[in-house]
This record gives sequence, C-alpha cells and structure tokens, in this order.
Amino acid sequence: MSATPTYADWIAVDWGSSTARAWAIAADGTILAEAMRPIAPAVGRAMLTDLIGDWLGGTVPTPVLACGLCGGTDGAPYLSVPVKLAALCPQPAPIQSDCRLALALVPGLSQTQPPDLTAGEETRVAGLLARLPGFDGVVCLPGAQTRWLQISAEEIISFQTCMTGEIFGLLAGQASLRPVVDGTALDTAAFDAALADSLTDPRRLAQRLFAIRADAVLNGTVNPVSRARLSGALIGAELAATRPYWLGQDVVVAGTPVLTELYVRALSQQGVRARVIDGTRLALAGLARIRAAQIKAGGKP
Amino acid sequence: MSATPTYADWIAVDWGSSTARAWAIAADGTILAEAMRPIAPAVGRAMLTDLIGDWLGGTVPTPVLACGLCGGTDGAPYLSVPVKLAALCPQPAPIQSDCRLALALVPGLSQTQPPDLTAGEETRVAGLLARLPGFDGVVCLPGAQTRWLQISAEEIISFQTCMTGEIFGLLAGQASLRPVVDGTALDTAAFDAALADSLTDPRRLAQRLFAIRADAVLNGTVNPVSRARLSGALIGAELAATRPYWLGQDVVVAGTPVLTELYVRALSQQGVRARVIDGTRLALAGLARIRAAQIKAGGKP
Repeated sequence: MSATPTYADWIAVDWGSSTARAWAIAADGTILAEAMRPIAPAVGRAMLTDLIGDWLGGTVPTPVLACGLCGGTDGAPYLSVPVKLAALCPQPAPIQSDCRLALALVPGLSQTQPPDLTAGEETRVAGLLARLPGFDGVVCLPGAQTRWLQISAEEIISFQTCMTGEIFGLLAGQASLRPVVDGTALDTAAFDAALADSLTDPRRLAQRLFAIRADAVLNGTVNPVSRARLSGALIGAELAATRPYWLGQDVVVAGTPVLTELYVRALSQQGVRARVIDGTRLALAGLARIRAAQIKAGGKP
Repeated sequence: MSATPTYADWIAVDWGSSTARAWAIAADGTILAEAMRPIAPAVGRAMLTDLIGDWLGGTVPTPVLACGLCGGTDGAPYLSVPVKLAALCPQPAPIQSDCRLALALVPGLSQTQPPDLTAGEETRVAGLLARLPGFDGVVCLPGAQTRWLQISAEEIISFQTCMTGEIFGLLAGQASLRPVVDGTALDTAAFDAALADSLTDPRRLAQRLFAIRADAVLNGTVNPVSRARLSGALIGAELAATRPYWLGQDVVVAGTPVLTELYVRALSQQGVRARVIDGTRLALAGLARIRAAQIKAGGKP
C-alpha cells in the first residue's frame, strides 16, 4: 500500500462456520490486504468491524459484500432453489453502529424437500463458474459441511449438505476413538477398503466406528490406518447418501487440497473421474462476480 | 458407620468411560459407603486411590475388585468370546505405590470378527443374570457406548458396540446442530418418525442430520422436535446395524431411565417387546457375584 492511505474500493467478506476471511479490493481488482479470524459459531456480525475496521475511514462508506453465515438466519432472506446465479443480488444490511461501511449480504439458498441451506456455497459456485464458464453438472465443495450442488445453465437446481467433516473432527478429536486416530497421516489402502465397505453396506456404520478402536487395541493397528478407516467409513456413508449427485454425473470437486484429494479418490473408486478446481479464494471470485454483475445492471457500486 | 472405624470387607469399583463409582462393602454385604468421580478418558488407575483412599487403612490390604476401563488396555488380558460367566475370574493387578489394597480386575471380553471390546458390560451381564437367572436372549446396555450382548446358558456368545450415545452428545453439545437441539425435552412423535425413516433407509443418515438444522431455521421447528429427530436418526441407524441382535429375539434393556425408555420405544416400534431391568448398580451386583463365585471356588477372598 502507498504512503498516502489508499482505502479499498470495496471489501469482500467470506463468513464461514469456523473462519471469517476478508479482502480489501482496489478499483482495478488488486487485492490490497487480506484478513482472517477464527470465529466461534453464532458470533454474528459484531466481529465484522473488528475484522475489517483497519481498512475503513474514507469520506464515503466503503461497500462491503459478504457471503456465508454473516448473512445467515439474521441476514438476507434465503432464496428457494432453483436459483439462477444472476438472481444472487446482494441485500443491504445496515449496521447502525458503524457508518463507515455499507454492508450487503449475498442471500443463501434454501430447499424445501429435503430441508437444506447453503452458507456461502452459492457464492463459491458463482466463483467456480467464473473459472469454468458454462459448466453443467455437480459441484462438490468439501469442508466441515460438504455441499453437493447440481448446476445447469447457470442455475443451481438442487443441493445436499452432509456434516461429514464436522463429525470426523468431533470423533477424531474428542471421542473414545481419539487415541487411536490421532495424527494427520492417512493410509490410502485402508481408506479405500473402509470406503468400499461403508458404501457396500451403509447400514453397519454405527457398529463400524467402534470396531476401529477395538481393532487398534486388540491388534495394534497403527493410527494412520485407523484414521483412514474413520475417514473412509464417514465419506462412504456420505457417498451412499448422495448417490444421485455423483452417479453418472460430471463432477467438479473444489476444497482444501487434503479433503479434495480424498473425495476425488473416493469418487474414482466408484468409477467417477471428478475434475478438480482450485478452491482457494473461490468465495472471493464469486463475490467479485456478483458485485460486477450488480454494477453492470446499474445497481449502486 | 460406627464410631469405631469399620473398614470394608472389600471394595467394588466400576470404572466407566466418563465416571468411576466405588462401593465399600461389609462382610454381610451391606454397603458402608459409596463414592463417585467424573473422569477424563485414559486417566487410568492413578485416580483409584483418590477414589477409595478414605476407606483403606486396615491391618491387611483391602481386596478391591474392579471392572471397566480400569482393567482396559493396561489391565487384565481380554477373554475372547464365547465366554462362560463362570470364567470371569478376577486377575491380580498389583499397585506398587499402595500396599493398603489388593486390586483385582475382571477381564473384559474381546471379539475378533467384527473386532470389539467390552468395558465392564461383561460384569453388568453377570449382575443382570443374578437378577434374571437362566436368561437366554439379548441384553442391550444403553450408554455413551451401547452394547448388545447375546446370552445363552450363562455364556456370552457375541456382542456389538455402537457409539450412538457418544455421537449424540458430541452433535447435540458442540456441532452446528447445538442451537436447534439444545435442551432435554424430546417430542416422542418426532422420535418415532425419525426412527422409522432412519431404519427404512439408513443410507441417507449423512444427509438427514443437517436437514434437522435446516428445517429448524426455515420452519421454526422447536428444539424438542429437532432433538427427537437427532436421537431417532441415530438410534435408528444403530437398530439398522444391530438387526440380528433384536429381530425375533428376547431382549432385555438395562440402562439409565431416559435412555432405556427410548430404546424400549424404538424396539417396540419394530414389534419387539423388550423387558426392562433396573440398570442401577448392575455393575455392583455383577462384581458381588463374581467375588462370591471366586470365594466359593476356594480363591483368596
């Protein structure tokens, strides 16, 4: 940044379930600054000015465009699928206590049957389609909650959320399994076997989990194998629940490298050659696209 | 207790995954004192003298008979099923640092296919059969880990462990579901519906869980309904995994009142009229029976 303070043209915010990310963007699209905070669930927007406060202070309020849980239950109303990406219009959300910013929220998506919600994934899809124009198929966004979204002609038709990552984190971090799955290494052969087993007979999931611990205690199975079995059992259960989303579909996976690799490996075992799109700054790409569309349509910048 | 200190004839210890319980027993079987401590997983036996230290101090070491995780991986070797209850012989486990007690551990049970372990349930079954002599059928012991044990002619034939309670606690207490399932009330109609749904199509479990949150956010579903759906979905998944243990079987359920009622309700929905046995002090009853058998056989008291 220059010696004379250059305030951002606008600020992009991606409010996740565990992390909030923000970018200060110049008029020419350059990223001037980036900020990140871990957040407790349901902290709400109170932390927003803490996250981006350093970038505020121009003569006019800085436009802030946010997606994710910042626009959750107390934010913009949900749009019910099917939803054209062009319909993702930011909704103004005044923050009474801070006139330095003009906050707008990208609405999340809702679905009636089965009941479901997105939390920033609609914006990631907009970003993904900016990188992969005209994509028709299924987008898999792995994370603490993995979302599968069916896309056709720039429209999100339906979607499905699985809490696989969240459940894995709880079981690996706190449950009676912790001592035997601690660590980060993962045995891929054990992952493949557990995944196949879980997909072949998803009914046995409840029993399969404790068997991971019992086998480790009885047979001295090493942690990378036990951890892979837990991961394989849970991702297998997810694939069993999401079969219509990947069977015979053109699938793109976009998440963190480790998770993306596991999902691609799992899908490949089922005969699905998923493409990988770099998941980094996908929300930022989506927010930039939504903002550009808004300006083009004559909306206030 | 009398003014002159009456030391215990023996001490019974039930070492669970989250709680340790101990009883000081007189020669005539009277309970002289009772103690309880919450324990962190894998604390091991270091806490044992803290738990029962007040009761020690006679001229000879007090016999202490323990079951559960106190006799876990560092304790008595496991006995591989099938195991006659008469074979549950306490194994001496010297505690070097304290000569006031003589510790013996009831061995846990192990199973090869699928890999599984008990942690005090073998002793509870011994206690249950003291109350229900000659029982042939299946014993369901609900808890953080629920164990289903097949019993025939005073022998434990096979068993199966499900982490249902542990997973329910983690999801209800910490996951993104917490805000919508908080509380203790449970809507029984919602429990029945979720259980039936889960048993009919166990493959959809991964997707069903987040739908509980989405439905609450979208439709204002009250917490007792959401909590019942979570409980029903998980117990349904357990019943799907344990079908051979209850279908057409004579089932006895023995646990805490709330959990026992849920399992009996769930089984009844599947046409199984389970009997209820008071689960209170079942471990103590088992320890007393095992000790009596040992003395009768001429073992050291």
